[in-house]
Amino acid sequence: MAEIKVGIIGATGYTGSELVRLLLGHSNVSIDVVTSRSHAGKRFSTLHPQFETLFDEELEPTEAVADHELDVVFLALPHGVSMDFVAQYGVEKHRVIDLSGDFRLAEPAMYKKWYRTAHRAQEALESAVFGLPELFRQRIRGARLVANPGCYPTSAILALAPLVKRGLIDPKTLIVDAKSGVTGAGVKPSATTHFAHVFGNFSAYGLLKHRHTPEIESAVGRYGGRDVQALFTPHLLPIDRGILTTVYATPTDPKPDPNSFQDALDATYEKERFVRVVDRAPDVKSVRGSNFCDLHATYDKRTGRVVILSVIDNLVKGAAGQAVQNMNVMFGQLEHRGLSSAPLTP
Amino acid sequence: MAEIKVGIIGATGYTGSELVRLLLGHSNVSIDVVTSRSHAGKRFSTLHPQFETLFDEELEPTEAVADHELDVVFLALPHGVSMDFVAQYGVEKHRVIDLSGDFRLAEPAMYKKWYRTAHRAQEALESAVFGLPELFRQRIRGARLVANPGCYPTSAILALAPLVKRGLIDPKTLIVDAKSGVTGAGVKPSATTHFAHVFGNFSAYGLLKHRHTPEIESAVGRYGGRDVQALFTPHLLPIDRGILTTVYATPTDPKPDPNSFQDALDATYEKERFVRVVDRAPDVKSVRGSNFCDLHATYDKRTGRVVILSVIDNLVKGAAGQAVQNMNVMFGQLEHRGLSSAPLTP
Amino acid sequence: MAEIKVGIIGATGYTGSELVRLLLGHSNVSIDVVTSRSHAGKRFSTLHPQFETLFDEELEPTEAVADHELDVVFLALPHGVSMDFVAQYGVEKHRVIDLSGDFRLAEPAMYKKWYRTAHRAQEALESAVFGLPELFRQRIRGARLVANPGCYPTSAILALAPLVKRGLIDPKTLIVDAKSGVTGAGVKPSATTHFAHVFGNFSAYGLLKHRHTPEIESAVGRYGGRDVQALFTPHLLPIDRGILTTVYATPTDPKPDPNSFQDALDATYEKERFVRVVDRAPDVKSVRGSNFCDLHATYDKRTGRVVILSVIDNLVKGAAGQAVQNMNVMFGQLEHRGLSSAPLTP
Amino acid sequence: MAEIKVGIIGATGYTGSELVRLLLGHSNVSIDVVTSRSHAGKRFSTLHPQFETLFDEELEPTEAVADHELDVVFLALPHGVSMDFVAQYGVEKHRVIDLSGDFRLAEPAMYKKWYRTAHRAQEALESAVFGLPELFRQRIRGARLVANPGCYPTSAILALAPLVKRGLIDPKTLIVDAKSGVTGAGVKPSATTHFAHVFGNFSAYGLLKHRHTPEIESAVGRYGGRDVQALFTPHLLPIDRGILTTVYATPTDPKPDPNSFQDALDATYEKERFVRVVDRAPDVKSVRGSNFCDLHATYDKRTGRVVILSVIDNLVKGAAGQAVQNMNVMFGQLEHRGLSSAPLTP
Repeated sequence: MAEIKVGIIGATGYTGSELVRLLLGHSNVSIDVVTSRSHAGKRFSTLHPQFETLFDEELEPTEAVADHELDVVFLALPHGVSMDFVAQYGVEKHRVIDLSGDFRLAEPAMYKKWYRTAHRAQEALESAVFGLPELFRQRIRGARLVANPGCYPTSAILALAPLVKRGLIDPKTLIVDAKSGVTGAGVKPSATTHFAHVFGNFSAYGLLKHRHTPEIESAVGRYGGRDVQALFTPHLLPIDRGILTTVYATPTDPKPDPNSFQDALDATYEKERFVRVVDRAPDVKSVRGSNFCDLHATYDKRTGRVVILSVIDNLVKGAAGQAVQNMNVMFGQLEHRGLSSAPLTP
Repeated sequence: MAEIKVGIIGATGYTGSELVRLLLGHSNVSIDVVTSRSHAGKRFSTLHPQFETLFDEELEPTEAVADHELDVVFLALPHGVSMDFVAQYGVEKHRVIDLSGDFRLAEPAMYKKWYRTAHRAQEALESAVFGLPELFRQRIRGARLVANPGCYPTSAILALAPLVKRGLIDPKTLIVDAKSGVTGAGVKPSATTHFAHVFGNFSAYGLLKHRHTPEIESAVGRYGGRDVQALFTPHLLPIDRGILTTVYATPTDPKPDPNSFQDALDATYEKERFVRVVDRAPDVKSVRGSNFCDLHATYDKRTGRVVILSVIDNLVKGAAGQAVQNMNVMFGQLEHRGLSSAPLTP
Repeated sequence: MAEIKVGIIGATGYTGSELVRLLLGHSNVSIDVVTSRSHAGKRFSTLHPQFETLFDEELEPTEAVADHELDVVFLALPHGVSMDFVAQYGVEKHRVIDLSGDFRLAEPAMYKKWYRTAHRAQEALESAVFGLPELFRQRIRGARLVANPGCYPTSAILALAPLVKRGLIDPKTLIVDAKSGVTGAGVKPSATTHFAHVFGNFSAYGLLKHRHTPEIESAVGRYGGRDVQALFTPHLLPIDRGILTTVYATPTDPKPDPNSFQDALDATYEKERFVRVVDRAPDVKSVRGSNFCDLHATYDKRTGRVVILSVIDNLVKGAAGQAVQNMNVMFGQLEHRGLSSAPLTP
Repeated sequence: MAEIKVGIIGATGYTGSELVRLLLGHSNVSIDVVTSRSHAGKRFSTLHPQFETLFDEELEPTEAVADHELDVVFLALPHGVSMDFVAQYGVEKHRVIDLSGDFRLAEPAMYKKWYRTAHRAQEALESAVFGLPELFRQRIRGARLVANPGCYPTSAILALAPLVKRGLIDPKTLIVDAKSGVTGAGVKPSATTHFAHVFGNFSAYGLLKHRHTPEIESAVGRYGGRDVQALFTPHLLPIDRGILTTVYATPTDPKPDPNSFQDALDATYEKERFVRVVDRAPDVKSVRGSNFCDLHATYDKRTGRVVILSVIDNLVKGAAGQAVQNMNVMFGQLEHRGLSSAPLTP
């Protein structure tokens, strides 16, 4: 089978280096170009020394993408920058997997509301497919532009969508209490990512305003066929990688079968390699470095609520791993190619 | 003023050593006896080397408590052991501040249900006062036996009780998503407290069954004058000290004043030294080592829910610090004596 | 090529699970049996939930090894237990790679001195080969019994042996100041591996008496052809994986070429895939999860000393990864098979 | 006794806030002014929210110092800025305790060599006293300008100076392998202090070139009366606070009494409240938040070397705590006033 020729646009952050890590282990890919606005001319491994001897390619400026015949480009860019890239280079010459938030919300108006800027690639936006393969695989296959889901949304949507679709929970009662490692905040140093601040610490942030809120609501709504309302509270964990999301919902049936929620997850994901429905409270370290999402649902008879726990590695299933999974779907590859490593635990 | 003569029963764990740390800084206390079942005969500072030169007293067996004229004993014992101590030594010769769960639930039947054993000091139980000074100060003053609240309950009750009392939130809709550092699990080594397991990890535990659930419900209910139902989900944070509790509730008024919740906290605690109602999302490190509880409430118009954040140091306001505060209340001391240190941050 | 049939003896600890992690990614291996004394009958993935769906085999008792036709067994056993296994099952029916300290010291007398017990498999000991492929590859090829080096020794020997062999440093002046993550202490819970103790902490341990001391001295001595004396100070880092070893030595030449030390490392390892001689101070996270050893040497003209920094992942190059590398050497496989993943960074 | 009127110049960093933390607990001090170049006009507790309700004073610009009658100013400024402050405001109107490196090296030439800039307050430099009270108490008493020692030097000098002075170790053979928490690197965010980089990581830095090298050599030399040469290797620990320094030296006597080194430390510090000579390997958490330095010396007969371990909290004994101790010495206060809290452990 011919190799998939890949470009990685914006390779200086955590998502960029994670894409390289995973794609180096993919037997049917060649990374033809890696770009960086700020570090063009340097070796990739100078910025990411863990890759020394493994991937010492030179970073090129973004424009260099035009000089390569690529099958797909991964956009590991900030939101705003991604849509400008798409506006400029299109999705015809190469397919696009965008890891920013730019193509995740179908409506330009919703984008404007939450991202506080107008969308500048609306035509492309119309064609974009939300890249959560377990729920939208069919549409991803033929997509030219895949919007790779956010890290929090991935963990929340996989937990909620099956229950909403089956009408098991009231889609207006969703509470998403999520906790993420610091890599989710990006590589740029700031007071809130300073080690001395985060170490031994824990806090919520972005109360009521986080941009992943509409992403969760719209993807769960689209899959479940209902209007969805979710209260989303992100928290910053003092770890590098990993998200645990605790989801609360009210069942539609006041006296539900307590097992029905876990059963619904089981049924939805029984053939999915990357979603494990487990019979214990899952922990983030059991998925570290892997593309797994571990789920567990339980029902509290006392208070009449469902609790669902969901863990992922935010850089893998929450970003680069899911992007590679999408690529595999788009190019007819085995879906787990490059993604079969066991978690790095402990 | 005469010194308060203090005994600490069970001084080998984290709560015991934290009591010593705080009481050494209290200008009106003498620690007359510290006991340990398993380590009697050793120096306290052999077990807790941080105290070398500061407190090198010898640990005595529990029975030694009878040889001392004490004003108050702190019971830093496991539940079950505490009630046996009280059954044996009573509360007449000395007042008792119990840091276990043995005297926190007023009803023996409720104790039996959640602790899975019959209560063995029921007479004392009837006289026990729940030791949350900000809410029950008056009763604590005259108490012979104070049940020092659990760490999770302290953080949750301070957040919820004022809103329930004022009828601002529906007491049947409470969701308490709490995250605690590892000292909350006690000093005993186990697979789940092994550093290599906890480091870089995060998980929920004790789903639907944690014993702090009825404690939260009954204390909020007693203060608020309503029946309360709370879904409580504890999580283990990879830090040593600190609890952040995120509380969700539905307002009773479908169109409430968005500020009314924070205002109610402000009004309740405006004269309280240890409860700070802050206008940002509080973080656990801002209270590390101190007796503070920082609170912040907000209202989400989109979903019609209240979110309250509450942080404490689980070993201080969640255990030893609150115990010292209770002692101060019981003995007519300035309430902040021994508790006025600034947090250790960063 | 025929698959290598593998047994893992003692699969409940960190080394056992790390062997499974790496061997699952090896295209030419089948894991035919995994054993556990204490957990036989349970599924491997019950003990190590990260492997759920990846490796759910049942743990067998040790004796089951006799029922399998195996090419090689990995002994992930405590010292003492390993030599008894070898004494009982021999090295003829299958080759043996032992990850304990039992076969690393050539002399029974030295073993007795440092391990405080007589060696109980002395015949096998005579035939054992020290499994550091970069230095002893030729002998490993034909070995029936390979003593996989300790984690600290691996990091120290790779740094020191080339310089001693070339006569660049005085082999009586070696100081090895080493810092290791907690997985090096094993999976058994104890007061010193309790999260609340280790978190935010750092200390030295095993002063002057650590068993890796003679291992470093003898391996460097054997390779370098000189008598070696090393002062070894291990420290416990509050991380899960990783060792950084800082080595100090006095050059033999009082006015050496400052670059000669780094040059010697370069020359020794230029064809080695797993040893990277880097021109910066290496950090442990740049090798996390990988089989790399990163080295850097420098010379201080002011004080006339050489400083060498060496980092590895203690569970990979310091244990399971090196064991797989040894297996590859012994069975004529590509040496990096199963070991080519990029480090998990950040 | 009259209150000491204090100013803190540069209160936005870790040292500034730590000074406030300690001075708030000092019964004989009033903090009359706190300044900040970049944040003047804000409340101190806006920058350091842990102080909310405890210290809400407004930050003033540096020049405001002239408007206050102060007994002493603490300079919590970067090097370079400190000497300019002293050049401008002098040491007559108020005494000065400088926490930067500007007045620690007696010779302008040495300052220029290591700090790569000329000294701009040479007259003041001549009068400066190195503020390590245990070794130089007498001179500190009358000093107008005290150079508060660096964090690494404090830990190393307390370990080495007594042994050099007594002629027990060869002062040309010193190796100082030191490991520090991240607060030592200051509050300014950077790639190397980003949580995701430091977490789970460990590395050396500043190889052979760290400015604390000449500070260690000159202070040990001055106290010990010999020329001293030290090879100094700092490492970055993934913790917030704490330094452990492992020191190696060659005894002058080839067959020394193995206990003589620990005995010398004992004798030197037996009346010192803040230096504890302990008979175990000390750990950094046993001094967290306190002004203690714990020391332990041992001798390795095999290799003929002395090993000394030294731990401090870099922000307390390594910075603000020692500064307060110096103030107490200078103003005839009890030396431990404001510094008597027990360590915060665990």
